[in-house]
Amino acid sequence: MSEADLKRRILAEVQGELAAIEQAIEANLAPHVELAREIAGHLLFAGGKRLRPLLMVLCSRLCGYRGGYETTFSTIFEYIHAATLLHDDVIDGGRLRRGRPAAHRIWDPPAVVLTGDFLLARALSIAARAGRLRILEVVANVTEEMTQGEILQLQRKGDLDLTRDEYLRIIRCKTAVLFEGACRVSALLADAPAGAEEALGRYGHHLGLAFQMADDLLDYTEDSAALGKLPGADLREGKLTLPVIHALARASEADRRTMVGIIEQPDFSAETFAGLVSLLHRYDGIDHTRRQAAMEVSRAKASLDFFPASKIRSILMDIADYALIRKS
Amino acid sequence: MSEADLKRRILAEVQGELAAIEQAIEANLAPHVELAREIAGHLLFAGGKRLRPLLMVLCSRLCGYRGGYETTFSTIFEYIHAATLLHDDVIDGGRLRRGRPAAHRIWDPPAVVLTGDFLLARALSIAARAGRLRILEVVANVTEEMTQGEILQLQRKGDLDLTRDEYLRIIRCKTAVLFEGACRVSALLADAPAGAEEALGRYGHHLGLAFQMADDLLDYTEDSAALGKLPGADLREGKLTLPVIHALARASEADRRTMVGIIEQPDFSAETFAGLVSLLHRYDGIDHTRRQAAMEVSRAKASLDFFPASKIRSILMDIADYALIRKS
Repeated sequence: MSEADLKRRILAEVQGELAAIEQAIEANLAPHVELAREIAGHLLFAGGKRLRPLLMVLCSRLCGYRGGYETTFSTIFEYIHAATLLHDDVIDGGRLRRGRPAAHRIWDPPAVVLTGDFLLARALSIAARAGRLRILEVVANVTEEMTQGEILQLQRKGDLDLTRDEYLRIIRCKTAVLFEGACRVSALLADAPAGAEEALGRYGHHLGLAFQMADDLLDYTEDSAALGKLPGADLREGKLTLPVIHALARASEADRRTMVGIIEQPDFSAETFAGLVSLLHRYDGIDHTRRQAAMEVSRAKASLDFFPASKIRSILMDIADYALIRKS
Repeated sequence: MSEADLKRRILAEVQGELAAIEQAIEANLAPHVELAREIAGHLLFAGGKRLRPLLMVLCSRLCGYRGGYETTFSTIFEYIHAATLLHDDVIDGGRLRRGRPAAHRIWDPPAVVLTGDFLLARALSIAARAGRLRILEVVANVTEEMTQGEILQLQRKGDLDLTRDEYLRIIRCKTAVLFEGACRVSALLADAPAGAEEALGRYGHHLGLAFQMADDLLDYTEDSAALGKLPGADLREGKLTLPVIHALARASEADRRTMVGIIEQPDFSAETFAGLVSLLHRYDGIDHTRRQAAMEVSRAKASLDFFPASKIRSILMDIADYALIRKS
């Protein structure tokens, strides 16, 4: 199925959920301080996919939850995600985000840092209101692992010796733990059996890895119009991802030198970047990453075998497939 | 009693607690990422007073707690405090902290921002391990109010029309809520009756206000050797505090113009600053602030009437007195 068809099929099924999530994201923001709302809103209402809250809501349905708190609760995963994007963009000096200038180019970086802090704190307050200790443990653990991943990524920035294992650890911390957390807490909210929690946790984990690998691929396969940011942005920020790590390890001495030369000069032109991309293809960096992501998608889908076939389960399967073929 | 005598009397009583807190702060840091430990350690082990964890430990004793988790738990209040100091110094461009160069002058500001995030996340993980939902609610609420206070302060930076009420709201959010939280959760940890929680919450609230007012005074009354930072630092960062707000409201038109002229030129010389301080004295800004702080100390001590007289209660009374007369 084409990307557009799959996207249409998913959206047709979840439009009610997405509308409710959208409304809750705005309603729960309610800070007493207008500036935080403005800065947070600039990012939050720039057309994000709402994938994390959507997963949480769908997984809670899959577990038969009927308590009515899932939509409110799901916003915390969008807030945590937005908080890390705000801090990331300040940290990396990222220029574009979701097709708009990054927040720190409009407001002072300090205000952006504080807005990230505010979103994180807001998320925790909402999590506390669910009244389940285990949920708060999961959320606290997610935030701790995420910051550790960010610090590791920062520390290894521009390092050409970044290993595949380190890459996997970074994407697990910065992306997969939040996906896993969103899916896992839905089972907790629904008082589902431990097996359901584990299955959904695995689904989120593998989906998160696939999602991040696919994201890392887009940087080498799509143009800036589709991305809402400059292609090659990861490399310009000194972030080595799997396509590059895999190709560097297999390249001839001469080609490796060429690639290293490009990576070490982050002001590369579009032509130079195109040359790098063709080397990534030659050394299987692109296809290898796609195969790895596909494997993670399969694992994510297999985790759902725990649950009997249902409409909701099909949507979650579709979302896993979509993670891989999406072009933005 | 002199400052030195009072300090000696308090320290004699709590040295065991302080040593245990010191050890726990190091032990609980244990991040998987060395850089965060280094940056956090630079600030955490630069001779802080450990007042927040100490209050938590003492209040838990006052409530008869014997569970053994109070020292570990108390570290979260030092971590949250350190996280806000790290973010604050990046935000304000502060140069000195506890007599050392601020962290962002040694490491990249992004790494410092992330270390703050890490400390906050670590604090929440430790809080979650206490296994009490109500405690997590209090901690989540504290972090949310603190970030809102920081944003408000940033938003009103350099604004000469900052009102006394806004000042009080800012110091409540940025200081008093954390003191209040530390004292309040000790009662929760000890399963103390609601009256004890309320009394300790009030004690922490008023003590926090007094502590911050006294801190704001030090900027106009002590030299840089005692402060570990430059005098007049608040004003250089565009922060109007009660001594200035009160004096500005009472000054003659001419003196007000002089003061405004100094405040609007934050590169003022030591002589110019001395001139401002004498105007603050003339218009009662210094003494008024001291009287307000003294009133908050009285309220803090009165809150302890809920508890019968005891050694621990005396120490908490002494700490309240010390908040006001301390010179650093």
